[in-house]
Amino acid sequence: MTVQQKPASVTTGPVIGSRKLYTSPADRPDIRVPFREIDLHPSANEPPVRIYDTSGPFTDPAAHIDLEAGLTPLRGPWLAGRGFTTIAARAVKPEDNGNIGDDKLVPACPAPREVLGGVAGRPVTQLEFARAGIITEEMIYAAHRENLGRQEMVAGAEERRADGEDFGAAIPPFITPEFVRAEIAAGRAIIPANINHPELEPVIIGRNFLVKINANIGNSAVTSSAAEEVEKLVWAIRWGADTVMDLSTGRNIHNIRSWIMRNSPVPIGTVPIYQALEKVGGDPDKLDWEVFKDTLIEQAEQGVDYFTIHAGVRLAYVPLTAKRVTGIVSRGGSIMARWCLAHHRESFLYERFGDICDIMRKYDVSFSLGDGLRPGSNADANDRAQFAELETLGELTKVAWDKGCQVMIEGPGHVPMHKIKVNMDKQLRECGEAPFYTLGPLVTDIAPGYDHITSAIGAAMIGWFGTAMLCYVTPKEHLGLPDRDDVKVGVVTYRIAAHAADLAKGHPAARLRDDAISRARFEFRWEDQFNLGLDPDTARQYHDETMPKEAHKVA
Amino acid sequence: MTVQQKPASVTTGPVIGSRKLYTSPADRPDIRVPFREIDLHPSANEPPVRIYDTSGPFTDPAAHIDLEAGLTPLRGPWLAGRGFTTIAARAVKPEDNGNIGDDKLVPACPAPREVLGGVAGRPVTQLEFARAGIITEEMIYAAHRENLGRQEMVAGAEERRADGEDFGAAIPPFITPEFVRAEIAAGRAIIPANINHPELEPVIIGRNFLVKINANIGNSAVTSSAAEEVEKLVWAIRWGADTVMDLSTGRNIHNIRSWIMRNSPVPIGTVPIYQALEKVGGDPDKLDWEVFKDTLIEQAEQGVDYFTIHAGVRLAYVPLTAKRVTGIVSRGGSIMARWCLAHHRESFLYERFGDICDIMRKYDVSFSLGDGLRPGSNADANDRAQFAELETLGELTKVAWDKGCQVMIEGPGHVPMHKIKVNMDKQLRECGEAPFYTLGPLVTDIAPGYDHITSAIGAAMIGWFGTAMLCYVTPKEHLGLPDRDDVKVGVVTYRIAAHAADLAKGHPAARLRDDAISRARFEFRWEDQFNLGLDPDTARQYHDETMPKEAHKVA
Repeated sequence: MTVQQKPASVTTGPVIGSRKLYTSPADRPDIRVPFREIDLHPSANEPPVRIYDTSGPFTDPAAHIDLEAGLTPLRGPWLAGRGFTTIAARAVKPEDNGNIGDDKLVPACPAPREVLGGVAGRPVTQLEFARAGIITEEMIYAAHRENLGRQEMVAGAEERRADGEDFGAAIPPFITPEFVRAEIAAGRAIIPANINHPELEPVIIGRNFLVKINANIGNSAVTSSAAEEVEKLVWAIRWGADTVMDLSTGRNIHNIRSWIMRNSPVPIGTVPIYQALEKVGGDPDKLDWEVFKDTLIEQAEQGVDYFTIHAGVRLAYVPLTAKRVTGIVSRGGSIMARWCLAHHRESFLYERFGDICDIMRKYDVSFSLGDGLRPGSNADANDRAQFAELETLGELTKVAWDKGCQVMIEGPGHVPMHKIKVNMDKQLRECGEAPFYTLGPLVTDIAPGYDHITSAIGAAMIGWFGTAMLCYVTPKEHLGLPDRDDVKVGVVTYRIAAHAADLAKGHPAARLRDDAISRARFEFRWEDQFNLGLDPDTARQYHDETMPKEAHKVA
Repeated sequence: MTVQQKPASVTTGPVIGSRKLYTSPADRPDIRVPFREIDLHPSANEPPVRIYDTSGPFTDPAAHIDLEAGLTPLRGPWLAGRGFTTIAARAVKPEDNGNIGDDKLVPACPAPREVLGGVAGRPVTQLEFARAGIITEEMIYAAHRENLGRQEMVAGAEERRADGEDFGAAIPPFITPEFVRAEIAAGRAIIPANINHPELEPVIIGRNFLVKINANIGNSAVTSSAAEEVEKLVWAIRWGADTVMDLSTGRNIHNIRSWIMRNSPVPIGTVPIYQALEKVGGDPDKLDWEVFKDTLIEQAEQGVDYFTIHAGVRLAYVPLTAKRVTGIVSRGGSIMARWCLAHHRESFLYERFGDICDIMRKYDVSFSLGDGLRPGSNADANDRAQFAELETLGELTKVAWDKGCQVMIEGPGHVPMHKIKVNMDKQLRECGEAPFYTLGPLVTDIAPGYDHITSAIGAAMIGWFGTAMLCYVTPKEHLGLPDRDDVKVGVVTYRIAAHAADLAKGHPAARLRDDAISRARFEFRWEDQFNLGLDPDTARQYHDETMPKEAHKVA
């Protein structure tokens, strides 16, 4: 083991200009929900501005960060009261880490955690609790978190709501734990929260809540190590990623994931078919239910919060892509399409969907039903292949709900502006209002190097129309692997899209921050303008390049 | 005079991967319209992709660039046939260049040009020619330029149009010179083309044509020289600016403008009140009609193609801004509001509007009726102040049309997504479909450093809804002066917004380039993907950072 393979240090300390704080619901002082607060210049004569905080303990100067110990398992006491059983963990197999030699094996994170499993006949998932009328601590936490600023904005909230356009969403002036429960029970929202991820700071994803964003990270045989992977997570959540998908492939994948899970305050998603493919030597034809099932259990026991499952890529749909300009561009979609064609059989993910549900329910892993046939170009948007799959995802949503599983639905991709709303409306209709989770969409194909922008246009619009979570796109999309700067730019760009959507929907408190920064701008309170922005460092740097003097900042 | 004050060299040579070419309408071989063509890899077995080209002779290896001589006055023969008179040019005054000492005076561009003026009773402006049923060479040129790709796309054009959503625009499958004439005659489009700007490559601005973008440049006492200003222009049009506004202030402004005008193939816009203010020592209270009128004539004789005139800021509207979060943020708006309050009089721009029209008609300077009361924050969007001014701009549009002047209307600014369409609809209604020309709008205020993105979201949407030209915003907006990289990023970002709008409107040929790049992407023709993109250099660089080998580019 070499030094650089072991996570040693990650970025810590507050975002410049912000203070970390925790507040609790009145009746639950044990539930501490994190926020950031920005103090304004005394001349403003305004209270601090409180903002949503995804960054976890890493930005808390009072927190002791020890990657080997993992984050404090704050959900431990909550989970302890739910009657789960401690189960014998699946033994790690050499293929879990790509059969790597001992000399190159990254050690697993040594943080001790028992593996929990749900039992039949008793609620396990947030959906099951919600249906049983039980409000979990996760629901209380998420409700308090969402209420950011709403207490002081209750007066006039209805007028602000009426001033927006939410296309049939039903955002209440104030979020109660009971509202969270009801939304989850209805399938309109999810809290991805594997019972083996006790370090999680719960977050709710649904169209009646703040729009969320996801950032992807992934190792690469060439460029990454475990240390770098954990730092990528920390870096992405520092700038505002609500969830992170670990799309790693290759060697050490299992052990790197252990470091990520034990140190992640945000839900972690994966695409299990990627690792399953590694286990069969990279040949899609060799995939089968047994290796896939084994991978699901492996990752579920590690605590992964949601799985992308491409069960909607049915054999009959593959020919529908034949005349496309860009065929099948989803990696999971390509793998399954190839498997279906090679065996000339229905997808095992589709045929075994009930079994997949049973596994995911046991740990409360949420579904992210993958859009394996999403368009890879504007030319292919909204075609029969895409929509046939979406209809199947609707069918599978109902199966998963019946099995007690939480579900969200993945969406495109590349879609010109005038075809975006059709996607949203069809998703709501086909999938019973299960949360939509889209990649962009990119509204033109002609700007490689700027696809964070082409996609932010589509993302802002579809977020406004009702998408619950937006998967980020970085400037390196279509070109290469994002570096640290790209991840930051991608996250900030998607925070813009999500916030623009919240504003347009008429969220009763979203404009608080805009108004505070606008007042600061008008009064030339430069430091306040920087600190209230999504990226204080870049704003300050740009300003100082042409107006470097301190005097200019208070003028 | 120091060496760096004299424009010596600017960026020349083709955009990497593109070839310059000129084609002519069948019956007018004397009219040579520029395009770029991108040759694809032989394996593609596809013809070259032709794209719109704003870059002028600077990207033509066959052109001899001599800044002192200026560009070839290609409109000379056209103008010669229209009966204009050569007039005695207004003598340059010391205050035109800010009373700068001879030792610091940048010399004027020595390119010899006679000053032309229109005469009463004969058509001067493109609007007057259009109304008289006369198709000018500028109209023929602009029609041919717009037809990019449409010849080969005539088959199926109607279906592609029907597949789009143009909100009542009427984009024809093919653009004839007669269509251009009719659109100008109806006031729905303009060709900004001062008769003293013979170097111009004409471009048409209107909702039934390709969406255009503007880039702003401007000197600064601290950072710029004449050489830098011309290079800024060349740089902005290289990446796709259709028009450029010169917002320079301070010393040498007249002489720097002479270099820009004589070397600009694109329409140049200015805000004359800025220079008028310089002439009265920076005190708005000292402005009057005489100094403004003198400035209009000065700039019109130099060849400026359109003037922003803030004649809609009426005395009665100023109090409407009192309760705003960000008051008046337009510089021209602030100047005129202060003048109105100081004198407690109606704006002289409003009162003298007929006289302004007479001057602008004489040279065919187009109006860009300024939105001096545009919102500076989402909080102030669509308020009574903004809309009252817009109603006045509608009234002034009709006056200008009666005087024979071409008109476009400036729009906001900062507007949340759900309030954008109202702006467009109201502008079309109030201003009789005169072209709308908006700054963004920014859809949230919370991202200083990223306002090219916050505004591109709004720009793409309002372009789709019917805005004819989008004024770019750079990453430095609200923070400082854009440098060379910022200008490029701003221009490329706005080309994205404009193209996304064209696609959504159902432009019959817009998707040609998207489809070509999508095929290149799907077939791993990396060089083709780079070259077909808006910024080949950045795409190539991003790719090479992580996959540097040549082999990867043809794999």
